[in-house]
Amino acid sequence: MRALILKHDGYEREMPDDPTLTEMDPFVRLGELPVPEPGEGQVRIRVALAAVNPSDEMFIQGLYGQPRIQGNAAGFEGVGEVVASGGGSLADRLVGRRVAFVAAVGVPGTWAEYSIADAALCIPLVDGVRDEDGAAMIVNPLTALAMLDIVQGEGAPSFIVSAGASQLCKLMIGLAAEKGLRPIALVRRDSQIELLEGLGAAHVLNIEGEDFASRLRAVVREEKPRVFLDAVANQLSARVFHVMGRHARWVIYGKLDAELPTLVEPGQLIFMNKHIEGFWLTRWMRDTPMEEKAAAIQTAQSRFATGEWRTDVTAVLSLEEAMSRLPAELATPNGKVFLEP
Amino acid sequence: MRALILKHDGYEREMPDDPTLTEMDPFVRLGELPVPEPGEGQVRIRVALAAVNPSDEMFIQGLYGQPRIQGNAAGFEGVGEVVASGGGSLADRLVGRRVAFVAAVGVPGTWAEYSIADAALCIPLVDGVRDEDGAAMIVNPLTALAMLDIVQGEGAPSFIVSAGASQLCKLMIGLAAEKGLRPIALVRRDSQIELLEGLGAAHVLNIEGEDFASRLRAVVREEKPRVFLDAVANQLSARVFHVMGRHARWVIYGKLDAELPTLVEPGQLIFMNKHIEGFWLTRWMRDTPMEEKAAAIQTAQSRFATGEWRTDVTAVLSLEEAMSRLPAELATPNGKVFLEP
Repeated sequence: MRALILKHDGYEREMPDDPTLTEMDPFVRLGELPVPEPGEGQVRIRVALAAVNPSDEMFIQGLYGQPRIQGNAAGFEGVGEVVASGGGSLADRLVGRRVAFVAAVGVPGTWAEYSIADAALCIPLVDGVRDEDGAAMIVNPLTALAMLDIVQGEGAPSFIVSAGASQLCKLMIGLAAEKGLRPIALVRRDSQIELLEGLGAAHVLNIEGEDFASRLRAVVREEKPRVFLDAVANQLSARVFHVMGRHARWVIYGKLDAELPTLVEPGQLIFMNKHIEGFWLTRWMRDTPMEEKAAAIQTAQSRFATGEWRTDVTAVLSLEEAMSRLPAELATPNGKVFLEP
Repeated sequence: MRALILKHDGYEREMPDDPTLTEMDPFVRLGELPVPEPGEGQVRIRVALAAVNPSDEMFIQGLYGQPRIQGNAAGFEGVGEVVASGGGSLADRLVGRRVAFVAAVGVPGTWAEYSIADAALCIPLVDGVRDEDGAAMIVNPLTALAMLDIVQGEGAPSFIVSAGASQLCKLMIGLAAEKGLRPIALVRRDSQIELLEGLGAAHVLNIEGEDFASRLRAVVREEKPRVFLDAVANQLSARVFHVMGRHARWVIYGKLDAELPTLVEPGQLIFMNKHIEGFWLTRWMRDTPMEEKAAAIQTAQSRFATGEWRTDVTAVLSLEEAMSRLPAELATPNGKVFLEP
């Protein structure tokens, strides 16, 4: 079978100056792999569509918290038809079903014609759900739901998100508005403001705007956000955290900029009870009971089925096209890129 | 009455390049104040000896998390005789007793001939306890006990302390060793190594040593410390935190260096579940039930009474002497400075 195959083992030793993916060649190659065999409790899936998430972008570069396995197909998430069971009643019952899934650990990933998933982590899809939604139904929606749980646990309605126009943040903003929360979105383009306000953002601030610092201070004073969900983790993030009030939590879940943040005033951690921490979906998945995860995924599926949620598609690429065009397509704002193996 | 009187209100606007206290004159003056009257439930204390803690050093400069009140006497902690009650049975019963105390909020502090304390926060002293121990019996011992609670809550025996030769760290190291914990102390002088090993440090590392980085890595690999209790919060602190493993907590409780820390690898917060937070005794005092505090203070007192704990004294200064000599005496390592108003 054809696949985008990892060229390296383990992790990159040094954080590069810029973690943006600019070339595929140093990290993956297009090649042939044997069709993988599912183990007990697993299924083989013919991949219809695979997502390209920020976590994939970091993973193939060796910058994500899971070691690469040289010779394995890349890709965490996808949608496809279950074509074989490795045994076990749950796996057997999935054969012939279209499922959303996350590839099992240590097996060929979703950037391949076939992939392997644990049957317990396959979500059978109802008819109304498009492949584009199924292929992006686990990582982003679960991340959004899990992070909004953090916000709600703090008991204050307002929170800040960086990279506000990302697919993930758009999901979060819509979901947050429904829950009566008041998201403050940071974006880099004025053109994104109206879109996010339409989704339910209480405030949208352009970080490139000349008055950003003073507007941020005013909004923080008014809304008193307690949580900062941050995909960027650069010096601007440190400044946003510095402006926030007592008990603020800076929750880092991505590192979209190579610039390292310097704490503006460490004394705030002492006297204002502020915290800095990380969020990683992989850990949340491990620590969260199966029923809670299943409920979260069903919530996501029903929203996609009714059309209430809809994944914005930037491009659908073949594996060949991905080798040359994926970095450029990822640089396009506002939508998600998919692979069609 | 004579007192060292605060010259400014509120906070300093800007963190100075170096928070070390080099002059008294910009911040306090020696002057006269009316003898203060205790309110209901409070007592007036004739101060025998007042402590000079790192928190005082920060406070008079406007760098501590409590606003200064211009015209008030400085000083948080002291020992002395209760000479008047403001009413209430607890306050009445304390008259004539020698007590360790922390000055009430908004009243003249302990760097004065008389100070005011809430009766509930006065600790009657037994005879075996020296004035030097009584005057340093609340802030440091409670900080040590509270921070060791954090360590023990993590369930791993090993932890790291910076500024390892401070009076506070010496208390913590001894107490930790008794509890079967394994402190790793960071110091700046080889001459401090033997002393801290004698108190029970599992490892003492000189941060000025050429092999510090490699020794730290080796010790962290061996001991797997989970908590870093840090009074310095500079770039070296950030590097120590970076070397620590999964689930490490960087607990900042002081800022002894003006250099701001830059996070070495924010991805560790995400993938390794590491945290950065602060510890502030004032908050701990507010959030901790009275019985727990009383038990902690009794533990401290009994250790001082038996001579098991002993406060090392660098100097005892009059208020006049303090105006000229306090900064120089504070720069002397290993002991505590007291004022005798």
